[in-house]
Amino acid sequence: MLKACKQHIEDLFPFFKEGKLLVACSGGLDSVVLAHILRELEYNIGLAHCNFSLRGKESDEDEAFVINLSEKWNVPVFTETFNTKEYAATHKLSTQMAARELRYNWFEELLKDFKYDYILTAHHADDNLETFLINLSRGSGLRGLTGITEQNDKIIRPLLPFSREEIFHFAKKEKLFWREDSSNASSDYLRNELRHEVIPPFKKASKGLLKSLQKTQRNLQQTEALVSDYMVLVRNLVMQETSQGFEISISKLQELPNPDALLYELLSPFQFTAWDDISGLLYAQSGKQVFASNFRLIKDREVLIITKITSEEKKVSKFISENETQIDSPLKMSFFPTDKMGYIDTNTVYVDASKISYPLVLRRWEEGDVFQPFGMKGKKKLSKFFKDEKLSLASKEQIWILLSNNQIVWVVGYRMDDRFKITPTTDKILKIAVAH
Amino acid sequence: MLKACKQHIEDLFPFFKEGKLLVACSGGLDSVVLAHILRELEYNIGLAHCNFSLRGKESDEDEAFVINLSEKWNVPVFTETFNTKEYAATHKLSTQMAARELRYNWFEELLKDFKYDYILTAHHADDNLETFLINLSRGSGLRGLTGITEQNDKIIRPLLPFSREEIFHFAKKEKLFWREDSSNASSDYLRNELRHEVIPPFKKASKGLLKSLQKTQRNLQQTEALVSDYMVLVRNLVMQETSQGFEISISKLQELPNPDALLYELLSPFQFTAWDDISGLLYAQSGKQVFASNFRLIKDREVLIITKITSEEKKVSKFISENETQIDSPLKMSFFPTDKMGYIDTNTVYVDASKISYPLVLRRWEEGDVFQPFGMKGKKKLSKFFKDEKLSLASKEQIWILLSNNQIVWVVGYRMDDRFKITPTTDKILKIAVAH
Repeated sequence: MLKACKQHIEDLFPFFKEGKLLVACSGGLDSVVLAHILRELEYNIGLAHCNFSLRGKESDEDEAFVINLSEKWNVPVFTETFNTKEYAATHKLSTQMAARELRYNWFEELLKDFKYDYILTAHHADDNLETFLINLSRGSGLRGLTGITEQNDKIIRPLLPFSREEIFHFAKKEKLFWREDSSNASSDYLRNELRHEVIPPFKKASKGLLKSLQKTQRNLQQTEALVSDYMVLVRNLVMQETSQGFEISISKLQELPNPDALLYELLSPFQFTAWDDISGLLYAQSGKQVFASNFRLIKDREVLIITKITSEEKKVSKFISENETQIDSPLKMSFFPTDKMGYIDTNTVYVDASKISYPLVLRRWEEGDVFQPFGMKGKKKLSKFFKDEKLSLASKEQIWILLSNNQIVWVVGYRMDDRFKITPTTDKILKIAVAH
Repeated sequence: MLKACKQHIEDLFPFFKEGKLLVACSGGLDSVVLAHILRELEYNIGLAHCNFSLRGKESDEDEAFVINLSEKWNVPVFTETFNTKEYAATHKLSTQMAARELRYNWFEELLKDFKYDYILTAHHADDNLETFLINLSRGSGLRGLTGITEQNDKIIRPLLPFSREEIFHFAKKEKLFWREDSSNASSDYLRNELRHEVIPPFKKASKGLLKSLQKTQRNLQQTEALVSDYMVLVRNLVMQETSQGFEISISKLQELPNPDALLYELLSPFQFTAWDDISGLLYAQSGKQVFASNFRLIKDREVLIITKITSEEKKVSKFISENETQIDSPLKMSFFPTDKMGYIDTNTVYVDASKISYPLVLRRWEEGDVFQPFGMKGKKKLSKFFKDEKLSLASKEQIWILLSNNQIVWVVGYRMDDRFKITPTTDKILKIAVAH
């Protein structure tokens, strides 16, 4: 395998000779083999090891192993310890995604600070097959099936054509040592099951499966390239940049075949990927909105307007447009225009509809929020209000606020804002109620 | 499931109510359930059963079972017995492909002769998953992964969203009877292994796998639609119909991004699918040819010319163009222009180059072939020639003939044709040799 691998690396990455290469090294089989081969090729390498603190003492032993290796080989080593669980919790990520983010952020810093040219990871053909089947299990589209690429900017995967088995036999032959993960497994249940229960009989039934997958993925990458060429044309036809973001002409889009599929492709760079939300957009009422993590899409008669969400807006849990009379999440609430006030309780308020600007916003309260409690002339901090109401920390955390144009309309279930109350000049009334 | 299935059928195929439906019924679980449901829905159905004579007595019992069912239900039945093995041998097909061809050809006849509107087959979600994994195992591209469609012209698969398990439980609940295939298995090794060894653990690891596959395949179908929309544009730009077939402008194609991938898509409707042959075409020498079963592609300087292969040409094993000096298959032969004759033996001939038209054609001889043996004034049938030479049947079957413009130049290794011999007026000579 060394020969095949050398050939592969020299063919695909001739620039390795001149570069400074940082090898991501967990201490496990794959990355030890990668580092070993690069060293045999006499490239200028350094090792980078992430300690994710996920397996206690074992994690520390992995780190020690890699440091030891670097000393034996006399190459630079970089290590960093992460509190992955905490990062995952703070950023609302899965442990896996958190580890991934931490790893690649740190690698980028290292590249910059220590002037490395590339970061090399030991992904191999079996990783690719597992990922393919995982994405299939998630109902992914083309992009999820095209596979890891050998090079993605500065990240390079030289072992991609080789199987786990080939790597293992090579390591045995070369009498290498590596750290065995005591769980002998990925922390991901599905990947684990695929690796141990599904892929072995699949490979037995289908000789050359990994090679076939490579062929399939090369074909799919070609197809992906054609779709993206087509989308360049389509984008020129139907989409234009504005000072706020982008506009898509609905009528121009509908002149083309398969407008729904085109819309999905147009929106996916903005991470609008919820097909069910998008598919209705072309036929939806004006005012309908869809949100991605950084972008908002509004249907405004003939155009779809895409704008970046400000950091202020990011706190929003829900936008409520004028024609929505009911929402089910994060709370069950109703919004009814009416011509007279009815019974008021903590779960129902009546506000002056003419003072409301849409979309209404529903979000958690936060430090610094201020309102003008019903019946009062002055402003009050929400934190002060809650203290006066003697709310427990737990109760406070459950509170939602409804806002119009950045002003609190209602501390939901507690107190409405004086600025939106009904007055003798009120002509349209909006009844807002919450169900617990 | 009956309810879900009824709903599904009524939503997708409202025209079933008015139509005459022919149900493909093997007598197995799936097709008995399909026929049962359609009968419950009070549609106008008939049963069509193919006896492929592949499992002896069992095949005949399957047939009897379906006839019996039709009598019990009082619906029309059509049966036909095929000699599948023989058909496969004659048409050089796998048993599976032969059965498929026989089945669908017969179904079409039935539709026409008995005025049925649709043929319904019992393909279900598990069939789809198996086919997906089989095509993956073969290194297929997008088209092999998009799955069976619910409707393909007159062929409709109403059970496609349902799993084998759902169908089984339904049959149990309804106390249906069906014929169990004693091998309990598909005759296809890979499908069998997937069904029994690979898919069960895959489903266990990934809950809702069949639904995810449906979602993935819907996504892939959308992508396929976009690629085909793009290809309409590309075809208009680079391809034009001629009296003989089609021409592709190489320079126009190369002005577009990803010309190789585009060429593959342009050629695939003609069944040119050997990527290795195609990928070199844009940069190949003028004269290079590639063959599909019904089309020939020739590179002629600035254009790729696609023409239909005539039935005469289909017998051809090899076309030899003017600039080929050597071929390796089906025989090792060489073609050298020279200015004087050399030693002649059974493996070497010298012909008048000016009498040759390219491409030369190499093929097996067949009944009716006639030539003018060297030194003779008259024509002779090849069959007679071989008889006079006292060739055995086995020897005769090994013989190749080389033709120019439908005239035999050389019965390779035996006798050249008098019409191509060197004469006093010959000015350019071609030396042709075969190596055994």
